[in-house]
Amino acid sequence: MSQRPLDILNKALGSSVLVGLKGGREFRGKLSGFDVHVNIVLEEAEELQGGEATKRYGTMVIRGDSVVFISPAG
Amino acid sequence: MSQRPLDILNKALGSSVLVGLKGGREFRGKLSGFDVHVNIVLEEAEELQGGEATKRYGTMVIRGDSVVFISPAG
Amino acid sequence: MSQRPLDILNKALGSSVLVGLKGGREFRGKLSGFDVHVNIVLEEAEELQGGEATKRYGTMVIRGDSVVFISPAG
Amino acid sequence: MSQRPLDILNKALGSSVLVGLKGGREFRGKLSGFDVHVNIVLEEAEELQGGEATKRYGTMVIRGDSVVFISPAG
Amino acid sequence: MSQRPLDILNKALGSSVLVGLKGGREFRGKLSGFDVHVNIVLEEAEELQGGEATKRYGTMVIRGDSVVFISPAG
Amino acid sequence: MSQRPLDILNKALGSSVLVGLKGGREFRGKLSGFDVHVNIVLEEAEELQGGEATKRYGTMVIRGDSVVFISPAG
Amino acid sequence: MSQRPLDILNKALGSSVLVGLKGGREFRGKLSGFDVHVNIVLEEAEELQGGEATKRYGTMVIRGDSVVFISPAG
Repeated sequence: MSQRPLDILNKALGSSVLVGLKGGREFRGKLSGFDVHVNIVLEEAEELQGGEATKRYGTMVIRGDSVVFISPAG
Repeated sequence: MSQRPLDILNKALGSSVLVGLKGGREFRGKLSGFDVHVNIVLEEAEELQGGEATKRYGTMVIRGDSVVFISPAG
Repeated sequence: MSQRPLDILNKALGSSVLVGLKGGREFRGKLSGFDVHVNIVLEEAEELQGGEATKRYGTMVIRGDSVVFISPAG
Repeated sequence: MSQRPLDILNKALGSSVLVGLKGGREFRGKLSGFDVHVNIVLEEAEELQGGEATKRYGTMVIRGDSVVFISPAG
Repeated sequence: MSQRPLDILNKALGSSVLVGLKGGREFRGKLSGFDVHVNIVLEEAEELQGGEATKRYGTMVIRGDSVVFISPAG
Repeated sequence: MSQRPLDILNKALGSSVLVGLKGGREFRGKLSGFDVHVNIVLEEAEELQGGEATKRYGTMVIRGDSVVFISPAG
Repeated sequence: MSQRPLDILNKALGSSVLVGLKGGREFRGKLSGFDVHVNIVLEEAEELQGGEATKRYGTMVIRGDSVVFISPAG
């Protein structure tokens, strides 16, 4: 019944996720890939401040080392 | 009689836990999974400030590298 | 005559320890387990500020990566 | 259908990318190489502040350890 | 004629050492053990500020990851 | 046609490079060696502030862990 | 013709070196040993501020993880 962290990411592929980084930056985008280091690929990525999109990036590779959390959108 | 850290997490599966991160952020949610890197999965996660829930995230994968402590609720 | 660090922790099992973390936070509790990464388990954990208990946590798993020092109570 | 992070970088070779570093510095340049550590090589690199180029560097090797994200230009 | 770092620690066993940590905290105590990660054991440990002892800890295990330097007393 | 990061360093041997470190310090000097950890050796090294040389160091070994970028002079 | 970083340290054994640490602290002393982690041993070590010796430490083991650069005196 336990869920492994990478299983959650696998189920979230193709869906929107919120990504929190060290230092507090947040990005939202469609999760289109990841690897075992939790390096992730977002499509249609945008940076959020106070919940509002402030900048759009298109495709974005985020290094796992900088990731604090990943939360699939409801 | 000694308890291994991962045993504690195993016993806490399905229960509410408080998670403290580097930099001081705190999240609370139902622990639904973890791996040996202490990457963890929370369900019904919410961020806390001063003990009050300030934001809700649903499911959340938190990278072990950011975790300072995990405390099962009473 | 030399004492290995993990031997000290082994002898402290079941006793109260003071744990100092990166950034200066301090916790006190009964050491009930640890592993080779110095991930530790505290029971009846409480956070200290200026030597005073400010918050109680029950059982707490602290990741070794955050630990600066562990000092068994006299 | 999932895209691996390094595949994205491979497809971006020869194209302009935006690179975000820990601490917030941003560089833009033509991605001309990378390795599995996400050490990267930029050509015609320039540092950006507020989206404006503030300094030009020519060829630049950036250590993966400092990289937060890499975003191929549209 | 070269001295290996761990040899220096080995010769210092049983003697007073000054330990400098990341962030600037300093501890002094009798070095009673260490391991290859430079995790160390101090006895009669005390924290120093401006060279003055400000707090006494008894036995203390310090994680090598936090250690900047170790200097055997004259 | 892809260039590996260490190939760039290899080609820069004997030439002047600009080295950016974590925290923002910058050094310039003749690259006379490096290893796979991107530990590097500079000759005639000088620290730069605002592009001006502020201190000269002669030979300098810089640990790769501190390096953010290395840019061969045009 | 390339010089490996550890070769430079080997040639500097017995000579005075300047050591820069993360956070900006600087120490000077006679390099009397090191290992592959760039843990180093200084003799007659002294801390420098603005180029002036402000404190003397005798023998000092510095962990490689804290070292930014090592520069043999002219």
